[in-house]
Amino acid sequence: MDRQVVGILGGGQLGRMLVEAASRMNVRVRVLDPTAQSPAKQISSFAQHIDEPFTSPEAIHALAEGCDVLTVEIEHVNCAELAAVEEAGTAKVRPSAATIRLIQDKCLQKEYLAARGMAVPAYARCDTLEEARAAGAAFGYPFVLKCRLGAYDGRGNYVVKSSGDVEDGFARLGGQMLYAEQFVPFAKELAVMVVRRPGGQVATYPVTETVQRDSICELVYAPAQIDGRVREAAMKVATDAVGCLPDGSAGIFGVEMFLHEDGRTVLVNEIAPRPHNSGHYTIEACCTSQFENHLRAVLDLPLGDTSLKVPAAAMINVIGGADGYSSVLDPCLASLDVPGATVHLYGKADAKPARKMGHITVVADSALQLRRRTDLIAGKLANASDEERERLAYRLLQKPTSDGSVSSEEQADVREMAPLVGIIMGSDSDLPTMRPAAQLLEQFGVPFELTIVSAHRTPDRMFEYARSAHRRGLKVIIAGAGGAAHLPGMVAALTPLPVVGVPVRGRCLDGVDSLHSIVQMPRGVPVATVAINNADNAALLAVRIIGASCPTYLDAMAQYMDDMRVGVEKKIGRLETTGWKEY
Amino acid sequence: MDRQVVGILGGGQLGRMLVEAASRMNVRVRVLDPTAQSPAKQISSFAQHIDEPFTSPEAIHALAEGCDVLTVEIEHVNCAELAAVEEAGTAKVRPSAATIRLIQDKCLQKEYLAARGMAVPAYARCDTLEEARAAGAAFGYPFVLKCRLGAYDGRGNYVVKSSGDVEDGFARLGGQMLYAEQFVPFAKELAVMVVRRPGGQVATYPVTETVQRDSICELVYAPAQIDGRVREAAMKVATDAVGCLPDGSAGIFGVEMFLHEDGRTVLVNEIAPRPHNSGHYTIEACCTSQFENHLRAVLDLPLGDTSLKVPAAAMINVIGGADGYSSVLDPCLASLDVPGATVHLYGKADAKPARKMGHITVVADSALQLRRRTDLIAGKLANASDEERERLAYRLLQKPTSDGSVSSEEQADVREMAPLVGIIMGSDSDLPTMRPAAQLLEQFGVPFELTIVSAHRTPDRMFEYARSAHRRGLKVIIAGAGGAAHLPGMVAALTPLPVVGVPVRGRCLDGVDSLHSIVQMPRGVPVATVAINNADNAALLAVRIIGASCPTYLDAMAQYMDDMRVGVEKKIGRLETTGWKEY
Repeated sequence: MDRQVVGILGGGQLGRMLVEAASRMNVRVRVLDPTAQSPAKQISSFAQHIDEPFTSPEAIHALAEGCDVLTVEIEHVNCAELAAVEEAGTAKVRPSAATIRLIQDKCLQKEYLAARGMAVPAYARCDTLEEARAAGAAFGYPFVLKCRLGAYDGRGNYVVKSSGDVEDGFARLGGQMLYAEQFVPFAKELAVMVVRRPGGQVATYPVTETVQRDSICELVYAPAQIDGRVREAAMKVATDAVGCLPDGSAGIFGVEMFLHEDGRTVLVNEIAPRPHNSGHYTIEACCTSQFENHLRAVLDLPLGDTSLKVPAAAMINVIGGADGYSSVLDPCLASLDVPGATVHLYGKADAKPARKMGHITVVADSALQLRRRTDLIAGKLANASDEERERLAYRLLQKPTSDGSVSSEEQADVREMAPLVGIIMGSDSDLPTMRPAAQLLEQFGVPFELTIVSAHRTPDRMFEYARSAHRRGLKVIIAGAGGAAHLPGMVAALTPLPVVGVPVRGRCLDGVDSLHSIVQMPRGVPVATVAINNADNAALLAVRIIGASCPTYLDAMAQYMDDMRVGVEKKIGRLETTGWKEY
Repeated sequence: MDRQVVGILGGGQLGRMLVEAASRMNVRVRVLDPTAQSPAKQISSFAQHIDEPFTSPEAIHALAEGCDVLTVEIEHVNCAELAAVEEAGTAKVRPSAATIRLIQDKCLQKEYLAARGMAVPAYARCDTLEEARAAGAAFGYPFVLKCRLGAYDGRGNYVVKSSGDVEDGFARLGGQMLYAEQFVPFAKELAVMVVRRPGGQVATYPVTETVQRDSICELVYAPAQIDGRVREAAMKVATDAVGCLPDGSAGIFGVEMFLHEDGRTVLVNEIAPRPHNSGHYTIEACCTSQFENHLRAVLDLPLGDTSLKVPAAAMINVIGGADGYSSVLDPCLASLDVPGATVHLYGKADAKPARKMGHITVVADSALQLRRRTDLIAGKLANASDEERERLAYRLLQKPTSDGSVSSEEQADVREMAPLVGIIMGSDSDLPTMRPAAQLLEQFGVPFELTIVSAHRTPDRMFEYARSAHRRGLKVIIAGAGGAAHLPGMVAALTPLPVVGVPVRGRCLDGVDSLHSIVQMPRGVPVATVAINNADNAALLAVRIIGASCPTYLDAMAQYMDDMRVGVEKKIGRLETTGWKEY
């Protein structure tokens, strides 16, 4: 893998992280960037960097002379010159000049994707004020006026709130090529990195959820806390979008998407032809980072494993603030105390407001632990009061309330997470029996879903539910049933996940019918059966199962068991003081 | 964390990985190394490196002038000059000169540790041939003659096999200060990284298992595949050993240990006062790497999270061979295809035999998957034949035999792994019922242990077994019991792990007594009960529980279920062709 030389147009933080990955592979990198001590150049003593603008034809030509491959860490480059390099064959250009040019123009990009059947938000060219007005009339308000070229981090966008704003927006962005885009009412913003090798091999990273503030990415969660089937759909959309780019577009691509508020429709927002802020988490959380995989792709080496190696990860951007460098350093110093956190500073001296100065990656054994850790750092980022910090630290210590259960505030967070446990029952008449399971999972902070699935009345639904359970992200299914009680066993026959069966007592036979129907499964398909009507124990078993490989929940279970002991000891004390006659 | 400058004596691969970690934290590093393009200097364009020997007093003095802290990546440095820097207060020296000097002399180091109550192999100073002969007589043969100073990677050691070898050994190592060491009959070699902050804060990494070939570290597995209580003991030994070093010894330390073949006794072999080859895996596998934590420690910043963030990891050294650079590049290129593998090359041009040129880290969801992945790379390292590689690749694909089970060859590997499942039963009379569980776990490649634990006849043993189960590394306990059948429920009351109960049928009541005793647990303590006498289903449930968070076993379970379908379809075919009368 070594002996090849890669030239990068741009030497910012993305270039820096590419250089870091390249050094590990003994791949030499030449950086073209106007700044002599740009972030990427700081971590490479290779003498052949070029201190010129990455739009300069001469500089690009000079860079190509000494390189096997040219690539970019920013799309606002001189595509004509890159095309000339391709034409002359001086060096390979990956991704291709045609692809970068297409992506540079956000309106052309949308037209291209739409023409190939990709779902995108409605859009229209707006060369004149009249066209902008027409777009408002067609899309409704608010809609967005956008510069076709050179826009990033919200710059070059104007949100038109009413027809009265159209003229102002057109004037403010005036003189540039514009287009209009419908405002998508989205549930979440998603992003996926896709990497493509010249021969066509493609690998797709997990779906992330991005949180923007003032149009700048603030937080990224991986995996996105959405249904696993929607995750699969988003991965397919991203892979298809990259797959339809012009031939030979090797490299990594960041695909930003909207998950419509209907919870199902995924629309492509835009594509970046380079490593992307939403993929920084891959350095700590995936087997092969986006940076290494970009290098592998442009060097035509086998692509690396894009899968998550930790259960949950987040990325918090460290952005320059009003108080200069301390706005950068404070959260980084604070995060040194947070387990699972890693600081990345980019070596930028000047902490201008809104400038990306670094990022912090956090890994965790569960979405719950991740939320606790990111809250702690985010609280520090936001200059939380001392009491607030103490409260957050308390949550981090995982003993938010005395009985090992999570606080009601945290339960609200947990309800937003993708479920790990599915509670199902044959009929709403089983709900009174099954409700304690839901209450206990809520108390432990285990995200879950609860619904009715009947083996006998909705067999199709049962098949679909059980077959898709592990793809949707569930780890355990709790099934309650009475009488002939087929649901737990049939579900177990359709999923490789552990199924916990709760025998529900009916009007006759005292629940023994349900118990035997659930527990006496044939060899090959087990159901983990608990006591008759004891949904509590089903939930506790689910917590133990998840806890077997997740210390957060194992610790919570140990705490719960200790609290039971304390509870009994209190009764012993009361019995002693009250006496058995009065108790 | 930035604005401080760290000076490193030595610029090899350890220095390089320190520089990598420092760049992420915006910490400036000055490297003192005689080679201008040494590995560490290649990845830092900071102009103030020094191209002089790290034994040069002038160079050390010059380095200290521009640094806040001096540290080392090699212990064979000029301690007198470091002590002078400490004395003059030009820069802090971490670890302290006294500690480095102590560690430089392996005999003094042993004397120091032994005097503080640490268990070390028997040793004796050998200034004369007579003393060497006396050591042979005292320790028996083989024993090891070692140079007190400057030895590494087996160089400076001589294994004395018999009394006739003493003179030869003494002559070969002649002229140097020697000592003798008893040869420890060890089950495994273990290593632990311990990091210490100046104020005394200590953090300890997981216990690794190291495999040496020709006295050079070849492979490291994390965590070590040993009983969790032995792991805890080894962590304590390592922490104590570092804890007893002279005051002010901040930084990271690698503690090499022997696990005696008795399986319990842990002896300290030696300590390295710097990042260590056995800790390279921490870059990909732990929350904070040994390199970042060394920097945090010498800069007196809060220590990072030392815990593993993946279930299993390994590190394979890439060592120069007879065929020069291709011996380095071939395994690296090959490992690009192996999921979870990351290549680190150190930028050394000259691939001399036995020189450490790079390493490959592999992460996995289980020890089983890890073994498959490392076998594949190790097979390539060893220039395996094409058929051998194909066989290894087949194992990687996780479908080694048609019925989803692992091969008998792999079962032998699995028996060496730390158990994930404990199978217990009240009496050996239950073994015929429980044996199928063991057979199935073996078939799935799940490491397990099997023993007798009786609630009624060995209550103390039951308490000890259940209480320590999760600390020992178990994830599921399968307990079989008949009649009053207290074992599963009592074990569940003592562990936060999931417990699977198998009701064993006795002479009367047809097993219903056992079933009800196991399943009808009170609220608070669940037992996952399976059908009467159905130990198969208990094992399958254990596989499902482990598979809930481990794709390797989830996939194996899906395969198993599909094989059941195929098995029934074959019978359907046979029934059709044979007819119901003849079948």
